[in-house]
Amino acid sequence: MKNKIVWPGSTQLAPIPVVLVGCGNGDDIPYNLITVAWAGTVCSDPAMLSVSIRPERHSYGIMMKTREFTVNLPSRKLARSVDFCGVVSGRDCDKFAKCGLHAEKGTEVTAPVVLECPITLECKLKETIALGTHTMFLAEICAIDLDSRLIDDKGRLDIERADLLAYAHGHYYGLGECIGHFGYSVRKKPGPVVRK
Amino acid sequence: MKNKIVWPGSTQLAPIPVVLVGCGNGDDIPYNLITVAWAGTVCSDPAMLSVSIRPERHSYGIMMKTREFTVNLPSRKLARSVDFCGVVSGRDCDKFAKCGLHAEKGTEVTAPVVLECPITLECKLKETIALGTHTMFLAEICAIDLDSRLIDDKGRLDIERADLLAYAHGHYYGLGECIGHFGYSVRKKPGPVVRK
Repeated sequence: MKNKIVWPGSTQLAPIPVVLVGCGNGDDIPYNLITVAWAGTVCSDPAMLSVSIRPERHSYGIMMKTREFTVNLPSRKLARSVDFCGVVSGRDCDKFAKCGLHAEKGTEVTAPVVLECPITLECKLKETIALGTHTMFLAEICAIDLDSRLIDDKGRLDIERADLLAYAHGHYYGLGECIGHFGYSVRKKPGPVVRK
Repeated sequence: MKNKIVWPGSTQLAPIPVVLVGCGNGDDIPYNLITVAWAGTVCSDPAMLSVSIRPERHSYGIMMKTREFTVNLPSRKLARSVDFCGVVSGRDCDKFAKCGLHAEKGTEVTAPVVLECPITLECKLKETIALGTHTMFLAEICAIDLDSRLIDDKGRLDIERADLLAYAHGHYYGLGECIGHFGYSVRKKPGPVVRK
């Protein structure tokens, strides 16, 4: 192929989400956080997502046991905590305390909603699939917790107010300008407004 | 929870990739494109990703038959084509011709590499899992095709040159400023440079 170079296969999908997965029940299993970029939406109805985690990680055993977790979408100002929670282990430190983050039980799951994150997806595990270095957790999204300041005066979610983080090739990014909405390429331009 | 509102579960993971999935073999099965945002990395080794597609889509049958596809990462300037390929069906039109896009066979798969996309992941299907409205295609990433202009003078991929698209809550975005790299939160600040 002209002007193309070919590399061996690797995990180059980008940009991808970078989320704080919350686990534990805050009771006999202390809350923990793990940063995950191997995450994706997998089904619209039922609403489902996947997160992939290495079996040697502390959160893996917790999630296998409780079969519940939260997916907390961080804003840009949480980038340093997101990075930290991907580097250190919950075996060695209380990541909530270390990062100054606060947890509350979800409404549908006992896993922790990170109160500082603008959006949290509460998830119930349906199935795990061992793939190699990572095991995929397939889960149903049972509830969404939203910072009330994200809701506009028409009651709709204004996602830009969440100031979300993206991940690409080992780097964290904010989102840039909005280019269009789904369907904009085929939408007829509105005609002049006729007032009656 | 204070200052939080709770919604029923829905597909609110964000930001997520928005990719042109290429299928067909350019021989007895004409090439087609389908835009997919339900995509994610699922394993590091072997390098694997998932894309989820509704069974009623034209590409679904093609991918089930050929068991190969490409995941083409579009740049910002392709946003209109990306949107168009998610709205119209390949049963009704040749999306490559309509969007002015050009295909070439991959090196590891016969599915089409979209030459205008800066990065293409060539994928071989390992497993499909019917989840509800969508079926998840789990695939191994066998090769990466990169626009040679993305490679810096040290031979490394400079992802910012790809000017990738992200998707969040029904809208397309460019990437904004780089905030840090993986591990930056625990990296010791370099001391003053001592010249010898």
